[in-house]
Amino acid sequence: MTEQLAAVEAALGAWVAPVGSTPPSLAEPMRYAVLDGGKRLRPLLVLAASQAVSGEPEAAMRAACAVELIHAYSLVHDDMPCMDNDVLRRGKPTVHVRYGQASAMLAGDALQALAFELLTPEGGLVPMAMQASLCRMLARAAGGQGMAGGQAIDLASVGLAISSEQLHEMHKLKTGALLLASVMMGAACGSPSAQAQAALSDYGAAMGLAFQVVDDILDVTADSQTLGKTAGKDAAQDKPTFVSLMGLQASRNYAQELLSQAQASLRHSQLPDTRALWALADKLVHRAF
Amino acid sequence: MTEQLAAVEAALGAWVAPVGSTPPSLAEPMRYAVLDGGKRLRPLLVLAASQAVSGEPEAAMRAACAVELIHAYSLVHDDMPCMDNDVLRRGKPTVHVRYGQASAMLAGDALQALAFELLTPEGGLVPMAMQASLCRMLARAAGGQGMAGGQAIDLASVGLAISSEQLHEMHKLKTGALLLASVMMGAACGSPSAQAQAALSDYGAAMGLAFQVVDDILDVTADSQTLGKTAGKDAAQDKPTFVSLMGLQASRNYAQELLSQAQASLRHSQLPDTRALWALADKLVHRAF
Repeated sequence: MTEQLAAVEAALGAWVAPVGSTPPSLAEPMRYAVLDGGKRLRPLLVLAASQAVSGEPEAAMRAACAVELIHAYSLVHDDMPCMDNDVLRRGKPTVHVRYGQASAMLAGDALQALAFELLTPEGGLVPMAMQASLCRMLARAAGGQGMAGGQAIDLASVGLAISSEQLHEMHKLKTGALLLASVMMGAACGSPSAQAQAALSDYGAAMGLAFQVVDDILDVTADSQTLGKTAGKDAAQDKPTFVSLMGLQASRNYAQELLSQAQASLRHSQLPDTRALWALADKLVHRAF
Repeated sequence: MTEQLAAVEAALGAWVAPVGSTPPSLAEPMRYAVLDGGKRLRPLLVLAASQAVSGEPEAAMRAACAVELIHAYSLVHDDMPCMDNDVLRRGKPTVHVRYGQASAMLAGDALQALAFELLTPEGGLVPMAMQASLCRMLARAAGGQGMAGGQAIDLASVGLAISSEQLHEMHKLKTGALLLASVMMGAACGSPSAQAQAALSDYGAAMGLAFQVVDDILDVTADSQTLGKTAGKDAAQDKPTFVSLMGLQASRNYAQELLSQAQASLRHSQLPDTRALWALADKLVHRAF
Protein backbone atom coordinates (compact mmCIF):
# COMPACT_ATOMS: atom_id res chain seq x y z
CA MET A 1 0.00 0.00 0.00
CA THR A 2 2.96 2.31 0.73
CA GLU A 3 4.15 1.81 -2.83
CA GLN A 4 0.72 2.59 -4.30
CA LEU A 5 0.50 5.70 -2.15
CA ALA A 6 3.86 6.96 -3.39
CA ALA A 7 2.80 6.32 -6.98
CA VAL A 8 -0.42 8.31 -6.46
CA GLU A 9 1.50 11.20 -4.93
CA ALA A 10 3.93 11.21 -7.84
CA ALA A 11 1.13 11.12 -10.40
CA LEU A 12 -0.77 13.94 -8.72
CA GLY A 13 2.43 15.98 -8.52
CA ALA A 14 3.01 15.50 -12.24
CA TRP A 15 -0.58 16.01 -13.41
CA VAL A 16 -1.95 18.81 -11.25
CA ALA A 17 -1.18 22.14 -12.89
CA PRO A 18 2.54 21.56 -13.63
CA VAL A 19 4.73 24.61 -14.24
CA GLY A 20 3.89 26.34 -17.50
CA SER A 21 0.54 24.62 -18.04
CA THR A 22 -1.67 26.94 -16.03
CA PRO A 23 -1.50 30.58 -14.92
CA PRO A 24 0.55 30.60 -11.68
CA SER A 25 -2.17 32.39 -9.71
CA LEU A 26 -4.42 29.39 -10.37
CA ALA A 27 -1.80 26.64 -10.37
CA GLU A 28 -0.61 27.50 -6.85
CA PRO A 29 -3.95 27.09 -5.05
CA MET A 30 -4.72 24.01 -7.17
CA ARG A 31 -1.50 22.31 -6.12
CA TYR A 32 -1.88 23.50 -2.54
CA ALA A 33 -5.35 21.96 -2.39
CA VAL A 34 -4.25 18.58 -3.66
CA LEU A 35 -0.61 17.86 -2.88
CA ASP A 36 1.15 16.98 0.34
CA GLY A 37 -1.75 15.77 2.41
CA GLY A 38 -4.79 13.55 2.48
CA LYS A 39 -5.18 9.87 3.17
CA ARG A 40 -5.69 9.14 -0.55
CA LEU A 41 -8.32 6.63 0.42
CA ARG A 42 -10.26 7.05 -2.83
CA PRO A 43 -7.25 6.60 -5.13
CA LEU A 44 -6.19 3.53 -3.14
CA LEU A 45 -9.69 2.09 -3.57
CA VAL A 46 -9.50 2.66 -7.32
CA LEU A 47 -6.12 0.97 -7.56
CA ALA A 48 -7.14 -1.92 -5.29
CA ALA A 49 -10.30 -2.57 -7.31
CA SER A 50 -8.34 -2.38 -10.56
CA GLN A 51 -5.79 -4.82 -9.16
CA ALA A 52 -8.60 -7.23 -8.25
CA VAL A 53 -9.83 -7.25 -11.85
CA SER A 54 -6.37 -7.07 -13.47
CA GLY A 55 -7.27 -3.64 -14.87
CA GLU A 56 -5.21 -1.42 -17.15
CA PRO A 57 -2.61 0.33 -14.94
CA GLU A 58 -2.57 3.63 -16.88
CA ALA A 59 -6.35 3.91 -16.78
CA ALA A 60 -6.41 3.00 -13.10
CA MET A 61 -3.85 5.62 -12.09
CA ARG A 62 -5.72 8.28 -14.07
CA ALA A 63 -9.02 7.24 -12.50
CA ALA A 64 -7.38 7.22 -9.05
CA CYS A 65 -6.15 10.78 -9.46
CA ALA A 66 -9.37 12.00 -11.09
CA VAL A 67 -11.43 10.80 -8.12
CA GLU A 68 -9.02 12.45 -5.72
CA LEU A 69 -9.31 15.75 -7.62
CA ILE A 70 -13.10 15.67 -7.28
CA HIS A 71 -12.70 14.97 -3.57
CA ALA A 72 -10.11 17.75 -3.18
CA TYR A 73 -12.22 20.33 -5.03
CA SER A 74 -15.24 19.48 -2.87
CA LEU A 75 -13.20 20.12 0.27
CA VAL A 76 -11.98 23.47 -1.04
CA HIS A 77 -15.52 24.63 -1.78
CA ASP A 78 -16.94 23.04 1.39
CA ASP A 79 -14.46 24.92 3.58
CA MET A 80 -15.39 28.34 2.20
CA PRO A 81 -17.11 30.90 4.44
CA CYS A 82 -20.47 30.51 2.69
CA MET A 83 -20.40 26.76 3.42
CA ASP A 84 -18.63 25.33 6.50
CA ASN A 85 -16.34 28.33 7.01
CA ASP A 86 -13.43 26.16 8.09
CA VAL A 87 -9.85 27.35 8.49
CA LEU A 88 -7.98 24.07 8.99
CA ARG A 89 -7.67 21.15 6.57
CA ARG A 90 -5.07 18.39 6.44
CA GLY A 91 -3.27 20.30 9.20
CA LYS A 92 -2.85 23.43 7.09
CA PRO A 93 -4.81 26.65 6.58
CA THR A 94 -7.65 26.03 4.12
CA VAL A 95 -7.25 27.23 0.53
CA HIS A 96 -9.44 30.32 0.91
CA VAL A 97 -7.56 31.35 4.06
CA ARG A 98 -4.26 31.05 2.22
CA TYR A 99 -5.23 32.40 -1.23
CA GLY A 100 -8.52 34.22 -0.82
CA GLN A 101 -12.04 33.13 -1.65
CA ALA A 102 -12.04 33.97 -5.35
CA SER A 103 -8.91 31.91 -6.00
CA ALA A 104 -10.25 29.06 -3.87
CA MET A 105 -13.48 28.94 -5.86
CA LEU A 106 -11.64 29.04 -9.20
CA ALA A 107 -9.10 26.44 -8.09
CA GLY A 108 -11.95 24.11 -7.11
CA ASP A 109 -13.66 24.67 -10.44
CA ALA A 110 -10.44 23.99 -12.35
CA LEU A 111 -9.77 20.82 -10.34
CA GLN A 112 -13.15 19.43 -11.34
CA ALA A 113 -12.41 20.07 -15.02
CA LEU A 114 -8.93 18.58 -14.63
CA ALA A 115 -10.44 15.36 -13.29
CA PHE A 116 -12.22 14.82 -16.61
CA GLU A 117 -9.14 15.87 -18.53
CA LEU A 118 -7.08 13.20 -16.78
CA LEU A 119 -9.63 10.58 -17.80
CA THR A 120 -9.45 11.48 -21.49
CA PRO A 121 -5.81 11.39 -22.63
CA GLU A 122 -4.92 11.44 -26.29
CA GLY A 123 -2.71 8.94 -28.02
CA GLY A 124 -4.19 5.55 -27.15
CA LEU A 125 -3.02 5.50 -23.51
CA VAL A 126 -6.52 4.44 -22.44
CA PRO A 127 -9.11 2.81 -24.76
CA MET A 128 -11.70 5.41 -25.81
CA ALA A 129 -14.68 3.33 -24.64
CA MET A 130 -13.04 3.00 -21.22
CA GLN A 131 -12.48 6.78 -21.14
CA ALA A 132 -16.16 7.38 -21.81
CA SER A 133 -17.27 4.89 -19.12
CA LEU A 134 -14.95 6.41 -16.54
CA CYS A 135 -16.18 9.94 -17.33
CA ARG A 136 -19.79 8.80 -17.04
CA MET A 137 -19.21 7.16 -13.66
CA LEU A 138 -17.30 10.13 -12.26
CA ALA A 139 -19.78 12.72 -13.53
CA ARG A 140 -22.72 10.88 -12.00
CA ALA A 141 -20.94 10.38 -8.68
CA ALA A 142 -19.89 14.03 -8.46
CA GLY A 143 -23.08 15.76 -9.56
CA GLY A 144 -26.59 16.47 -8.39
CA GLN A 145 -27.45 12.79 -8.06
CA GLY A 146 -24.23 12.18 -6.16
CA MET A 147 -21.86 14.24 -4.07
CA ALA A 148 -23.21 17.71 -4.85
CA GLY A 149 -26.76 16.47 -4.25
CA GLY A 150 -25.75 15.10 -0.86
CA GLN A 151 -24.10 18.37 0.07
CA ALA A 152 -27.29 20.21 -0.81
CA ILE A 153 -29.35 17.91 1.42
CA ASP A 154 -26.76 18.37 4.18
CA LEU A 155 -27.01 22.14 3.82
CA ALA A 156 -30.79 22.06 3.94
CA SER A 157 -30.87 19.76 6.97
CA VAL A 158 -28.78 21.78 9.45
CA GLY A 159 -30.72 22.23 12.67
CA LEU A 160 -33.55 19.96 11.49
CA ALA A 161 -34.50 16.66 13.07
CA ILE A 162 -33.99 14.07 10.34
CA SER A 163 -34.71 10.37 10.39
CA SER A 164 -32.14 7.60 10.21
CA GLU A 165 -33.39 6.87 6.70
CA GLN A 166 -32.83 10.47 5.59
CA LEU A 167 -29.36 10.48 7.15
CA HIS A 168 -28.46 7.33 5.25
CA GLU A 169 -29.77 8.80 2.01
CA MET A 170 -27.81 12.01 2.51
CA HIS A 171 -24.53 10.23 3.16
CA LYS A 172 -25.13 7.73 0.39
CA LEU A 173 -24.94 10.75 -1.91
CA LYS A 174 -22.56 13.08 -0.08
CA THR A 175 -19.65 10.74 0.59
CA GLY A 176 -20.91 7.31 -0.47
CA ALA A 177 -21.34 8.03 -4.16
CA LEU A 178 -17.71 8.99 -4.73
CA LEU A 179 -16.36 6.11 -2.61
CA LEU A 180 -18.56 3.66 -4.48
CA ALA A 181 -17.48 5.24 -7.77
CA SER A 182 -13.84 4.77 -6.73
CA VAL A 183 -14.39 1.02 -6.48
CA MET A 184 -16.47 0.80 -9.65
CA MET A 185 -14.09 2.96 -11.69
CA GLY A 186 -11.25 0.69 -10.64
CA ALA A 187 -13.38 -2.26 -11.72
CA ALA A 188 -14.12 -0.54 -15.05
CA CYS A 189 -10.38 -0.56 -15.81
CA GLY A 190 -10.77 -4.30 -16.35
CA SER A 191 -13.58 -6.61 -17.43
CA PRO A 192 -15.04 -8.21 -14.29
CA SER A 193 -17.86 -10.77 -14.47
CA ALA A 194 -21.38 -9.60 -13.61
CA GLN A 195 -21.09 -11.44 -10.30
CA ALA A 196 -17.79 -9.76 -9.44
CA GLN A 197 -19.19 -6.38 -10.46
CA ALA A 198 -22.22 -6.81 -8.20
CA ALA A 199 -20.01 -7.91 -5.31
CA LEU A 200 -17.71 -4.94 -5.76
CA SER A 201 -20.70 -2.65 -5.84
CA ASP A 202 -21.90 -4.09 -2.51
CA TYR A 203 -18.40 -3.69 -1.11
CA GLY A 204 -18.22 -0.08 -2.28
CA ALA A 205 -21.64 0.79 -0.85
CA ALA A 206 -20.74 -0.70 2.54
CA MET A 207 -17.41 1.11 2.52
CA GLY A 208 -19.06 4.43 1.65
CA LEU A 209 -21.40 4.14 4.57
CA ALA A 210 -18.73 2.86 6.97
CA PHE A 211 -16.51 5.78 6.08
CA GLN A 212 -19.15 8.26 7.14
CA VAL A 213 -20.03 6.40 10.35
CA VAL A 214 -16.35 6.40 11.33
CA ASP A 215 -16.07 10.07 10.37
CA ASP A 216 -18.93 10.89 12.71
CA ILE A 217 -17.32 8.85 15.50
CA LEU A 218 -13.96 10.58 15.05
CA ASP A 219 -15.61 14.00 15.05
CA VAL A 220 -16.54 13.46 18.70
CA THR A 221 -13.65 11.23 19.88
CA ALA A 222 -10.52 12.68 18.22
CA ASP A 223 -8.88 16.09 18.56
CA SER A 224 -8.25 18.60 15.76
CA GLN A 225 -4.51 17.96 15.66
CA THR A 226 -4.96 14.23 15.09
CA LEU A 227 -7.68 14.81 12.48
CA GLY A 228 -5.85 17.64 10.70
CA LYS A 229 -9.23 19.38 10.56
CA THR A 230 -11.54 20.98 13.10
CA ALA A 231 -12.95 18.36 15.50
CA GLY A 232 -16.36 18.61 17.14
CA LYS A 233 -17.66 20.57 14.16
CA ASP A 234 -20.85 18.61 13.58
CA ALA A 235 -22.12 19.08 17.13
CA ALA A 236 -21.13 22.76 17.10
CA GLN A 237 -23.07 23.25 13.85
CA ASP A 238 -25.95 21.12 15.12
CA LYS A 239 -25.60 18.73 12.20
CA PRO A 240 -27.32 15.36 12.39
CA THR A 241 -24.77 12.51 12.52
CA PHE A 242 -24.81 8.76 13.11
CA VAL A 243 -23.50 9.41 16.63
CA SER A 244 -26.15 12.01 17.44
CA LEU A 245 -28.81 9.70 16.04
CA MET A 246 -27.82 6.27 17.39
CA GLY A 247 -25.18 6.98 20.06
CA LEU A 248 -21.44 6.30 20.13
CA GLN A 249 -21.37 2.60 20.97
CA ALA A 250 -24.09 1.68 18.50
CA SER A 251 -22.22 3.65 15.83
CA ARG A 252 -19.07 1.66 16.57
CA ASN A 253 -20.98 -1.60 16.30
CA TYR A 254 -22.54 -0.42 13.06
CA ALA A 255 -19.13 0.38 11.54
CA GLN A 256 -17.95 -3.11 12.50
CA GLU A 257 -21.05 -4.65 10.94
CA LEU A 258 -20.48 -2.73 7.70
CA LEU A 259 -16.88 -3.98 7.64
CA SER A 260 -18.15 -7.56 7.93
CA GLN A 261 -20.60 -6.93 5.09
CA ALA A 262 -17.85 -5.51 2.88
CA GLN A 263 -15.60 -8.47 3.54
CA ALA A 264 -18.43 -10.92 2.86
CA SER A 265 -18.97 -9.21 -0.50
CA LEU A 266 -15.32 -9.73 -1.37
CA ARG A 267 -15.64 -13.42 -0.62
CA HIS A 268 -18.66 -13.60 -2.92
CA SER A 269 -16.87 -11.79 -5.73
CA GLN A 270 -14.91 -14.93 -6.74
CA LEU A 271 -12.05 -12.62 -7.70
CA PRO A 272 -8.63 -14.20 -7.18
CA ASP A 273 -6.86 -11.29 -5.48
CA THR A 274 -8.88 -9.01 -3.22
CA ARG A 275 -6.17 -8.58 -0.58
CA ALA A 276 -5.75 -4.85 -1.18
CA LEU A 277 -9.51 -4.23 -1.03
CA TRP A 278 -9.69 -6.30 2.15
CA ALA A 279 -6.84 -4.36 3.78
CA LEU A 280 -8.37 -1.01 2.80
CA ALA A 281 -11.71 -1.91 4.34
CA ASP A 282 -9.97 -2.80 7.56
CA LYS A 283 -7.89 0.37 7.50
CA LEU A 284 -10.90 2.56 6.74
CA VAL A 285 -12.92 1.31 9.68
CA HIS A 286 -10.03 1.23 12.14
CA ARG A 287 -8.46 4.55 11.17
CA ALA A 288 -7.67 7.09 13.87
CA PHE A 289 -8.02 10.15 11.61
CA MET B 1 -31.97 29.52 -36.09
CA THR B 2 -35.25 30.02 -34.21
CA GLU B 3 -35.95 26.32 -34.55
CA GLN B 4 -32.51 25.35 -33.23
CA LEU B 5 -32.94 27.72 -30.33
CA ALA B 6 -36.26 26.15 -29.37
CA ALA B 7 -34.71 22.69 -29.57
CA VAL B 8 -31.87 23.76 -27.27
CA GLU B 9 -34.30 25.23 -24.76
CA ALA B 10 -36.36 22.04 -24.78
CA ALA B 11 -33.28 19.85 -24.32
CA LEU B 12 -31.97 21.96 -21.44
CA GLY B 13 -35.39 21.89 -19.82
CA ALA B 14 -35.47 18.10 -20.04
CA TRP B 15 -31.87 17.44 -19.02
CA VAL B 16 -31.15 19.96 -16.27
CA ALA B 17 -32.13 18.46 -12.93
CA PRO B 18 -35.62 17.23 -13.88
CA VAL B 19 -38.09 16.57 -11.06
CA GLY B 20 -37.10 13.56 -8.97
CA SER B 21 -33.52 13.33 -10.25
CA THR B 22 -31.88 15.77 -7.87
CA PRO B 23 -32.67 17.09 -4.38
CA PRO B 24 -35.06 20.03 -4.87
CA SER B 25 -32.84 22.46 -2.95
CA LEU B 26 -30.17 21.88 -5.59
CA ALA B 27 -32.39 21.35 -8.63
CA GLU B 28 -34.08 24.74 -8.23
CA PRO B 29 -30.95 26.92 -8.37
CA MET B 30 -29.55 24.71 -11.15
CA ARG B 31 -32.62 25.22 -13.32
CA TYR B 32 -32.84 28.89 -12.40
CA ALA B 33 -29.23 29.37 -13.52
CA VAL B 34 -29.74 27.73 -16.89
CA LEU B 35 -33.33 28.01 -18.08
CA ASP B 36 -35.33 30.89 -19.44
CA GLY B 37 -32.56 33.22 -20.48
CA GLY B 38 -29.30 33.53 -22.32
CA LYS B 39 -28.51 34.01 -25.97
CA ARG B 40 -27.48 30.34 -26.31
CA LEU B 41 -24.69 31.45 -28.57
CA ARG B 42 -22.45 28.52 -27.66
CA PRO B 43 -25.09 25.82 -28.26
CA LEU B 44 -25.96 27.45 -31.58
CA LEU B 45 -22.28 27.39 -32.57
CA VAL B 46 -22.09 23.67 -31.70
CA LEU B 47 -25.19 22.89 -33.75
CA ALA B 48 -24.08 25.06 -36.68
CA ALA B 49 -20.64 23.41 -36.78
CA SER B 50 -22.20 19.97 -36.53
CA GLN B 51 -24.56 20.86 -39.37
CA ALA B 52 -21.61 21.95 -41.50
CA VAL B 53 -19.95 18.55 -41.08
CA SER B 54 -23.19 16.51 -41.17
CA GLY B 55 -22.60 15.47 -37.57
CA GLU B 56 -24.64 13.10 -35.39
CA PRO B 57 -27.68 15.08 -34.18
CA GLU B 58 -27.91 13.39 -30.75
CA ALA B 59 -24.24 13.99 -30.03
CA ALA B 60 -24.50 17.58 -31.24
CA MET B 61 -27.46 18.43 -29.02
CA ARG B 62 -25.73 16.92 -26.01
CA ALA B 63 -22.54 18.81 -26.78
CA ALA B 64 -24.55 22.00 -27.29
CA CYS B 65 -26.18 21.69 -23.87
CA ALA B 66 -22.97 20.58 -22.15
CA VAL B 67 -21.15 23.69 -23.34
CA GLU B 68 -24.02 25.88 -22.19
CA LEU B 69 -23.93 24.27 -18.74
CA ILE B 70 -20.23 25.09 -18.39
CA HIS B 71 -20.97 28.66 -19.46
CA ALA B 72 -23.91 28.91 -17.05
CA TYR B 73 -21.97 27.54 -14.09
CA SER B 74 -19.13 29.99 -14.76
CA LEU B 75 -21.60 32.88 -14.64
CA VAL B 76 -23.08 31.66 -11.34
CA HIS B 77 -19.65 31.47 -9.72
CA ASP B 78 -18.43 34.67 -11.39
CA ASP B 79 -21.37 36.65 -10.02
CA MET B 80 -20.73 35.65 -6.41
CA PRO B 81 -19.63 38.26 -3.87
CA CYS B 82 -16.06 36.95 -3.69
CA MET B 83 -15.73 37.40 -7.48
CA ASP B 84 -17.65 40.09 -9.37
CA ASN B 85 -20.36 40.52 -6.73
CA ASP B 86 -23.07 41.06 -9.31
CA VAL B 87 -26.79 41.10 -8.58
CA LEU B 88 -28.27 41.11 -12.10
CA ARG B 89 -27.90 38.48 -14.82
CA ARG B 90 -30.11 37.80 -17.84
CA GLY B 91 -32.43 40.45 -16.42
CA LYS B 92 -33.01 38.52 -13.19
CA PRO B 93 -31.44 38.50 -9.72
CA THR B 94 -28.28 36.40 -9.77
CA VAL B 95 -28.39 32.88 -8.33
CA HIS B 96 -26.68 33.74 -5.05
CA VAL B 97 -29.03 36.69 -4.52
CA ARG B 98 -32.01 34.42 -5.07
CA TYR B 99 -30.84 31.22 -3.31
CA GLY B 100 -27.88 32.19 -1.13
CA GLN B 101 -24.18 31.76 -1.73
CA ALA B 102 -23.86 28.14 -0.58
CA SER B 103 -26.59 26.96 -2.94
CA ALA B 104 -25.15 29.02 -5.78
CA MET B 105 -21.73 27.48 -5.34
CA LEU B 106 -23.16 23.95 -5.18
CA ALA B 107 -25.44 24.54 -8.16
CA GLY B 108 -22.45 25.71 -10.20
CA ASP B 109 -20.44 22.66 -9.16
CA ALA B 110 -23.30 20.33 -10.05
CA LEU B 111 -23.81 22.01 -13.44
CA GLN B 112 -20.18 21.36 -14.34
CA ALA B 113 -20.56 17.67 -13.46
CA LEU B 114 -23.83 17.49 -15.38
CA ALA B 115 -22.10 18.79 -18.50
CA PHE B 116 -19.88 15.70 -18.55
CA GLU B 117 -22.81 13.47 -17.71
CA LEU B 118 -24.71 14.75 -20.75
CA LEU B 119 -21.74 13.89 -22.95
CA THR B 120 -21.60 10.28 -21.76
CA PRO B 121 -25.03 8.67 -22.19
CA GLU B 122 -25.45 4.93 -21.93
CA GLY B 123 -27.10 2.77 -24.54
CA GLY B 124 -25.33 3.59 -27.77
CA LEU B 125 -26.90 7.02 -28.28
CA VAL B 126 -23.46 8.45 -29.01
CA PRO B 127 -20.43 6.39 -30.10
CA MET B 128 -18.09 5.84 -27.14
CA ALA B 129 -15.04 7.25 -28.93
CA MET B 130 -17.00 10.40 -29.74
CA GLN B 131 -18.05 10.67 -26.10
CA ALA B 132 -14.42 10.52 -24.99
CA SER B 133 -13.33 13.16 -27.55
CA LEU B 134 -16.12 15.51 -26.55
CA CYS B 135 -15.27 15.13 -22.84
CA ARG B 136 -11.61 15.81 -23.56
CA MET B 137 -12.36 18.96 -25.54
CA LEU B 138 -14.78 20.31 -22.96
CA ALA B 139 -12.53 19.55 -19.98
CA ARG B 140 -9.58 21.32 -21.60
CA ALA B 141 -11.66 24.33 -22.58
CA ALA B 142 -13.18 24.68 -19.11
CA GLY B 143 -10.14 24.12 -16.92
CA GLY B 144 -6.90 25.78 -15.91
CA GLN B 145 -5.63 25.96 -19.48
CA GLY B 146 -8.94 27.37 -20.62
CA MET B 147 -11.79 29.29 -19.05
CA ALA B 148 -10.80 28.94 -15.38
CA GLY B 149 -7.23 29.90 -16.25
CA GLY B 150 -8.45 33.02 -18.02
CA GLN B 151 -10.61 33.96 -15.06
CA ALA B 152 -7.59 33.63 -12.78
CA ILE B 153 -5.55 35.95 -15.02
CA ASP B 154 -8.49 38.36 -15.08
CA LEU B 155 -8.67 38.32 -11.30
CA ALA B 156 -4.95 38.91 -10.95
CA SER B 157 -4.94 41.77 -13.47
CA VAL B 158 -7.56 44.07 -11.93
CA GLY B 159 -6.09 47.54 -11.54
CA LEU B 160 -2.88 46.61 -13.36
CA ALA B 161 -1.71 48.07 -16.64
CA ILE B 162 -1.56 45.11 -19.02
CA SER B 163 -0.38 44.99 -22.61
CA SER B 164 -2.52 44.28 -25.64
CA GLU B 165 -0.76 40.93 -25.90
CA GLN B 166 -1.66 40.01 -22.32
CA LEU B 167 -5.26 41.10 -22.85
CA HIS B 168 -5.52 38.88 -25.92
CA GLU B 169 -4.04 35.95 -24.03
CA MET B 170 -6.44 36.42 -21.12
CA HIS B 171 -9.52 36.51 -23.32
CA LYS B 172 -8.27 33.68 -25.49
CA LEU B 173 -8.58 31.58 -22.34
CA LYS B 174 -11.43 33.24 -20.46
CA THR B 175 -14.07 33.36 -23.18
CA GLY B 176 -12.26 32.25 -26.32
CA ALA B 177 -11.50 28.70 -25.25
CA LEU B 178 -15.13 27.74 -24.69
CA LEU B 179 -16.34 29.47 -27.87
CA LEU B 180 -13.64 27.73 -29.89
CA ALA B 181 -14.52 24.45 -28.16
CA SER B 182 -18.16 24.97 -29.14
CA VAL B 183 -17.18 25.02 -32.81
CA MET B 184 -14.72 22.14 -32.51
CA MET B 185 -17.09 19.96 -30.48
CA GLY B 186 -19.72 20.49 -33.14
CA ALA B 187 -17.13 19.48 -35.72
CA ALA B 188 -16.23 16.40 -33.65
CA CYS B 189 -19.82 15.18 -34.06
CA GLY B 190 -18.88 14.42 -37.67
CA SER B 191 -15.67 13.56 -39.52
CA PRO B 192 -14.41 16.73 -41.18
CA SER B 193 -11.29 16.74 -43.35
CA ALA B 194 -8.09 18.12 -41.84
CA GLN B 195 -8.54 21.23 -43.98
CA ALA B 196 -12.10 21.77 -42.79
CA GLN B 197 -11.03 21.19 -39.20
CA ALA B 198 -8.25 23.77 -39.45
CA ALA B 199 -10.62 26.27 -41.07
CA LEU B 200 -13.23 25.73 -38.36
CA SER B 201 -10.56 26.20 -35.72
CA ASP B 202 -9.59 29.55 -37.30
CA TYR B 203 -13.26 30.51 -37.46
CA GLY B 204 -13.74 29.58 -33.79
CA ALA B 205 -10.68 31.50 -32.66
CA ALA B 206 -11.77 34.64 -34.52
CA MET B 207 -15.29 34.32 -33.13
CA GLY B 208 -13.97 33.90 -29.59
CA LEU B 209 -11.98 37.09 -29.83
CA ALA B 210 -14.73 39.02 -31.63
CA PHE B 211 -17.19 38.05 -28.92
CA GLN B 212 -15.02 39.64 -26.25
CA VAL B 213 -14.31 42.78 -28.26
CA VAL B 214 -18.05 43.28 -28.79
CA ASP B 215 -18.67 42.55 -25.10
CA ASP B 216 -16.24 45.29 -24.16
CA ILE B 217 -17.90 47.70 -26.61
CA LEU B 218 -21.38 46.94 -25.25
CA ASP B 219 -20.19 47.39 -21.67
CA VAL B 220 -19.64 51.09 -22.43
CA THR B 221 -22.34 51.73 -25.06
CA ALA B 222 -25.41 49.78 -23.85
CA ASP B 223 -27.49 50.13 -20.71
CA SER B 224 -28.10 47.47 -18.06
CA GLN B 225 -31.68 46.85 -19.13
CA THR B 226 -30.71 46.08 -22.70
CA LEU B 227 -27.79 43.91 -21.59
CA GLY B 228 -29.72 42.09 -18.86
CA LYS B 229 -26.62 42.51 -16.72
CA THR B 230 -24.85 45.43 -15.07
CA ALA B 231 -23.40 47.80 -17.70
CA GLY B 232 -20.28 49.87 -17.19
CA LYS B 233 -18.89 47.24 -14.84
CA ASP B 234 -15.44 46.95 -16.37
CA ALA B 235 -14.68 50.65 -16.06
CA ALA B 236 -16.11 50.74 -12.54
CA GLN B 237 -13.87 47.84 -11.54
CA ASP B 238 -10.91 49.32 -13.41
CA LYS B 239 -10.61 46.21 -15.57
CA PRO B 240 -8.52 46.38 -18.72
CA THR B 241 -10.68 45.98 -21.86
CA PHE B 242 -10.23 46.31 -25.60
CA VAL B 243 -12.04 49.65 -25.41
CA SER B 244 -9.84 50.99 -22.61
CA LEU B 245 -6.76 49.79 -24.45
CA MET B 246 -7.47 50.74 -28.07
CA GLY B 247 -10.47 53.08 -27.90
CA LEU B 248 -14.07 52.64 -29.04
CA GLN B 249 -13.74 53.19 -32.79
CA ALA B 250 -10.66 51.03 -33.15
CA SER B 251 -12.44 48.30 -31.20
CA ARG B 252 -15.38 48.48 -33.62
CA ASN B 253 -13.03 48.22 -36.58
CA TYR B 254 -11.27 45.31 -34.94
CA ALA B 255 -14.56 43.42 -34.42
CA GLN B 256 -15.37 43.95 -38.10
CA GLU B 257 -11.95 42.72 -39.12
CA LEU B 258 -12.38 39.57 -37.02
CA LEU B 259 -15.74 38.96 -38.68
CA SER B 260 -14.08 39.14 -42.09
CA GLN B 261 -11.40 36.71 -40.94
CA ALA B 262 -14.04 34.28 -39.66
CA GLN B 263 -15.95 34.42 -42.91
CA ALA B 264 -12.77 33.94 -44.93
CA SER B 265 -12.06 30.81 -42.89
CA LEU B 266 -15.48 29.43 -43.76
CA ARG B 267 -14.77 29.97 -47.44
CA HIS B 268 -11.49 28.06 -47.07
CA SER B 269 -13.18 25.18 -45.26
CA GLN B 270 -14.57 23.72 -48.50
CA LEU B 271 -17.57 22.57 -46.46
CA PRO B 272 -20.81 22.51 -48.48
CA ASP B 273 -23.13 24.17 -45.95
CA THR B 274 -21.69 26.83 -43.65
CA ARG B 275 -24.73 29.11 -43.77
CA ALA B 276 -25.54 28.73 -40.08
CA LEU B 277 -21.96 29.41 -39.04
CA TRP B 278 -21.90 32.44 -41.34
CA ALA B 279 -25.12 33.80 -39.89
CA LEU B 280 -23.94 33.27 -36.33
CA ALA B 281 -20.72 35.16 -36.95
CA ASP B 282 -22.69 38.05 -38.31
CA LYS B 283 -25.13 37.94 -35.42
CA LEU B 284 -22.38 37.76 -32.83
CA VAL B 285 -20.58 40.84 -34.09
CA HIS B 286 -23.69 42.90 -34.74
CA ARG B 287 -25.55 41.97 -31.56
CA ALA B 288 -26.96 44.73 -29.35
CA PHE B 289 -26.70 42.75 -26.09
